[in-house]
Amino acid sequence: MRICFTLKVRTNMLAEYKLRHAAVWPEMLEALRSAGWHNYSLFLAPNGLLVGYLEADNFDAACARIKDHPVNARWQAEMTPFFEQITVGGADDNLMPLEEVFHID
Amino acid sequence: MRICFTLKVRTNMLAEYKLRHAAVWPEMLEALRSAGWHNYSLFLAPNGLLVGYLEADNFDAACARIKDHPVNARWQAEMTPFFEQITVGGADDNLMPLEEVFHID
Repeated sequence: MRICFTLKVRTNMLAEYKLRHAAVWPEMLEALRSAGWHNYSLFLAPNGLLVGYLEADNFDAACARIKDHPVNARWQAEMTPFFEQITVGGADDNLMPLEEVFHID
Repeated sequence: MRICFTLKVRTNMLAEYKLRHAAVWPEMLEALRSAGWHNYSLFLAPNGLLVGYLEADNFDAACARIKDHPVNARWQAEMTPFFEQITVGGADDNLMPLEEVFHID
């Protein structure tokens, strides 16, 4: 199962967002792996558009597992201020999943 | 090498865009494969944002190879009217590549 989602990073915080993601906490990486987030990338456009791509056996289950990790709550609390348009919850509550309309291996 | 790019599909043409991509010509699929476009997906948002994700040994070379296929010129000629903001060339000349800022396997 391939998942793509978008978020919007505040344009005045792009440089800091990149710095943070070049040094994600090892325990957060381990939490993602153990929650079943595979081949997970984040891509950033100059206008702040952030695109996430990952593969998971079951995305809902992978999301539920990461939300159960205490480290995720700490990570998301640090990340939420980077994003526009978040009024309720954290970034992980506000992902906009896109529909896959084409795929070839 | 992981590549992510975006384009913008005209919102009044989303349904037709999806239909076309559910039935991409077999010779176009073969051209993509032989040009080295691997694990290639297109994701579409309701606002027309199109996100492409693929893996390639060398994206510039994969792009150059697909542009050499006669079938690509025919495919892109049919696709160009679906996209906004294309004034010169086809969709394949107007991809906006995003920067990968995070990855875990």
